[in-house]
Amino acid sequence: MAFELIILGSNAAVPAHGRYMTSQALNIRNRHFLIDCAEGTQMRMQEYKVKFQKINHLFISHLHGDHIFGLPGLILSMSLNHRKEELYIYSPPGLKELIETVWRISQSHLTFSVVFKESNSEVSERIYEDEILTVDTIPLKHRIAAHGFLFKEKPHPRKMLQEKIAEYNIPFHALNGIKKGADWVLDNGRIVSNAELTTNPPKARSFAFCSDTAYSEAILPLIEGVDLLYHEATFTHDLMAQAEITGHSTALQAAQIAKKANVKKLIIGHFSSRYKELQPLLNEAKTVFPDTELALDSAVFSVG
Amino acid sequence: MAFELIILGSNAAVPAHGRYMTSQALNIRNRHFLIDCAEGTQMRMQEYKVKFQKINHLFISHLHGDHIFGLPGLILSMSLNHRKEELYIYSPPGLKELIETVWRISQSHLTFSVVFKESNSEVSERIYEDEILTVDTIPLKHRIAAHGFLFKEKPHPRKMLQEKIAEYNIPFHALNGIKKGADWVLDNGRIVSNAELTTNPPKARSFAFCSDTAYSEAILPLIEGVDLLYHEATFTHDLMAQAEITGHSTALQAAQIAKKANVKKLIIGHFSSRYKELQPLLNEAKTVFPDTELALDSAVFSVG
Repeated sequence: MAFELIILGSNAAVPAHGRYMTSQALNIRNRHFLIDCAEGTQMRMQEYKVKFQKINHLFISHLHGDHIFGLPGLILSMSLNHRKEELYIYSPPGLKELIETVWRISQSHLTFSVVFKESNSEVSERIYEDEILTVDTIPLKHRIAAHGFLFKEKPHPRKMLQEKIAEYNIPFHALNGIKKGADWVLDNGRIVSNAELTTNPPKARSFAFCSDTAYSEAILPLIEGVDLLYHEATFTHDLMAQAEITGHSTALQAAQIAKKANVKKLIIGHFSSRYKELQPLLNEAKTVFPDTELALDSAVFSVG
Repeated sequence: MAFELIILGSNAAVPAHGRYMTSQALNIRNRHFLIDCAEGTQMRMQEYKVKFQKINHLFISHLHGDHIFGLPGLILSMSLNHRKEELYIYSPPGLKELIETVWRISQSHLTFSVVFKESNSEVSERIYEDEILTVDTIPLKHRIAAHGFLFKEKPHPRKMLQEKIAEYNIPFHALNGIKKGADWVLDNGRIVSNAELTTNPPKARSFAFCSDTAYSEAILPLIEGVDLLYHEATFTHDLMAQAEITGHSTALQAAQIAKKANVKKLIIGHFSSRYKELQPLLNEAKTVFPDTELALDSAVFSVG
């Protein structure tokens, strides 16, 4: 039951030091999602063996160039590879006009439909739901409309103890209810408690993507207790004034958010090009939140 | 006196086999030009140490995605690096609208001006001229308005023999005329021929970029005798029907054009992704035009 994130780019604004810009591929039990799509994303996908035809849902945090300039090329490549499936793109408003202008002027004719789902970044919205997971937006604080994304598995059903089915002669039609937590009543009226019939299911897992954003405690209730938090950390804390002006966060601030939200693990990225070496950012974050890692290009994070 | 071409990408349509898409950097005596700008061009420039701030003139052959999708990112990176100089972009019509839509929607504010010079692709036009060179368009035959570019040095002045200046007591103000071919008349009326005073200058050099295009003999007069011809060769000749339908050329056709135009050297590129190995394309071209090379990513061609 995979829940795996691959970092396709980790730098802010421009490519530097071998780092590309923001894009991440997320695989949750064979649902393949892409989050942001900077220039070069399709090259990174080739390099890291992420199959782009499997991606049906693409999430864009905001419309700054370093998060979207890989979109036209990726979509065109999907088309040149004869894609037929619809592609859903979730973003703040404006992306549809941008992309459709590109198609019109470059006279590109796609082999499939792109469905744009634009939502404002003022309040959290549920933008995706299927039988196993939901995706909600996380309003962020940036210079332009921006929202992150909370990917969350739905609760798994409880695990039926197979030997109890035989022991109590439980019919097939009753199993679903028991897996959802129901007790079982025998013919003689005795109640067999759910605790005797089932074991706890695996925990529902979650990942929150928060970039680009200034420090904002408003996101805490939305990301409370997530298993994996990606939070941007453009600067070290000595440049906090710079972070405030540009609507970004420091590594220390990212760690403060992680701590206050009681997340299990923090990964940081969107590094300013001024940092060739990233150890200072990591060290800074770890002083506040020890379980922090760098979300570097090619890094893979699994939620267990 | 550099005249050097660096190939930044050589594949058609999509990145494949480690090859990026069309873009070439041309340095003629410290004028730095960029021709086409596919996605990833700025990464290739970093990789191959081509300084993008030196580029003041950018030439776009046509508006298909695999020739322009690197433009927004490259221009934005120039701006984030605090560029002040104007950037001139020469292209078929439509690019200004596309790029300005991107700036508006992504709320990008540049630190410098981009001047769009759009020309139709019906007839050859002189689109650039300075004291040492000219650039003319080469109308091409493609599915969309497209033109190549002829970069041509102006004739160099003849070389003055220094010892003759003293021998005939030639004043400084007369030297320019002699370098342009004038004879020198002595006080006694005797004419000293220019041939005695000067030697031949270095030959004016030229490079023609022809992509994307179907086989077209209409370009022959424009590229006659150039030192270096880049001609697209998307397919091997067994796929000539495919080449015709898509407005592309085969390697054999590229070589036929090179031969008929009496060029000095041919380089081929814009390879279809179906060719992992490119030797068949090279072999095919060489049967008609022996001095052919593959214009592969990272290849450098100097015109002597």
